[in-house]
Amino acid sequence: MDKGAINVRVLKNSLGISHEIVRKVVCAGDIVVDATVGNGNDTLFLAELVGDTGHVYGFDIQEVALRNAQEKLQQADVLKRVSLIKDGHENMDQYIGQSVKAVMFNLGYLPGGNHSIHTKANTTIQAIQKSLDLIVPHGIVMLVIYYGGDSGFEEKDAVIDFLKTLDYRKYSVLMHHFINQIHCPPIAACIEKLK
Amino acid sequence: MDKGAINVRVLKNSLGISHEIVRKVVCAGDIVVDATVGNGNDTLFLAELVGDTGHVYGFDIQEVALRNAQEKLQQADVLKRVSLIKDGHENMDQYIGQSVKAVMFNLGYLPGGNHSIHTKANTTIQAIQKSLDLIVPHGIVMLVIYYGGDSGFEEKDAVIDFLKTLDYRKYSVLMHHFINQIHCPPIAACIEKLK
Repeated sequence: MDKGAINVRVLKNSLGISHEIVRKVVCAGDIVVDATVGNGNDTLFLAELVGDTGHVYGFDIQEVALRNAQEKLQQADVLKRVSLIKDGHENMDQYIGQSVKAVMFNLGYLPGGNHSIHTKANTTIQAIQKSLDLIVPHGIVMLVIYYGGDSGFEEKDAVIDFLKTLDYRKYSVLMHHFINQIHCPPIAACIEKLK
Repeated sequence: MDKGAINVRVLKNSLGISHEIVRKVVCAGDIVVDATVGNGNDTLFLAELVGDTGHVYGFDIQEVALRNAQEKLQQADVLKRVSLIKDGHENMDQYIGQSVKAVMFNLGYLPGGNHSIHTKANTTIQAIQKSLDLIVPHGIVMLVIYYGGDSGFEEKDAVIDFLKTLDYRKYSVLMHHFINQIHCPPIAACIEKLK
């Protein structure tokens, strides 16, 4: 009797975990941030969650990333819900004059892009600090940290070291880590503001 | 405009994470195991999930734990769905002659009990290995690892070292870790059998 057999994966990958958590938090009408637009996948995901009455601020320093994202958002007819901003995410406070519900980061290089252009620990940590100021209580900063091969190890270590220093009375930081892989699966880390 | 404010915690604690994952997997009619009955909280949780047509095997070596659990299950009128077995979980294969959907472990000492009586790395790892043989594809072994104060560090390290050695082609191991706490919050780790 093997009534328990099922064929659906239980554990999602880091991107799936990130989306599952963000979906719990972000509602129609919310203001949110995609701190690393990249090819616009998370920007589109957020634009669909916030609906017609919400807004997404998206940051990237690469023209090609913003162009790809703009096209993707246009095709989905959600471009008017999004402000695409060509500037480093460490300057997000200069563009956003209100509290936000969630900020998403994909750390590493642009998938399919030039590996020499990637987020860097110093500006990433500044951007996370600014995000923590911007989010409402029980808002989140969601990070997916890509590393492995030729890059990302230094940034990963620096970001995790920084997350460990966050005051446990103000923030809860949960790290999701696949620990039996031979390669370097991305790490999903969620910071929740407690008050 | 602070339309994003909400008052519900986003991140659950390790026990909540464990229950959330188990709830995704375990359905009415399933056969499951509580490898560490303790005070019977997870035994009751599982008995409610499997319903009248399922069954829970519960293991503990402490008479007091099994007595407390029996009372709790009786009160909830689910005792007939549960076999409470006074033996070490490393012997579970001697009692279970069929595949199971999920096995839950709470590692550490019995809450409120004697700290000198607690699960130990050697038998815990044997029990996890037997659990991995018993679960169906896409079944899970869910561990909540309590440690801190006077005990549990050695077991935690040994169990995590063991989990890292599991073949990534057969199992996916996801560890949930709160990384900015001053105390030692329990770690939730989930092993999913892939095939």
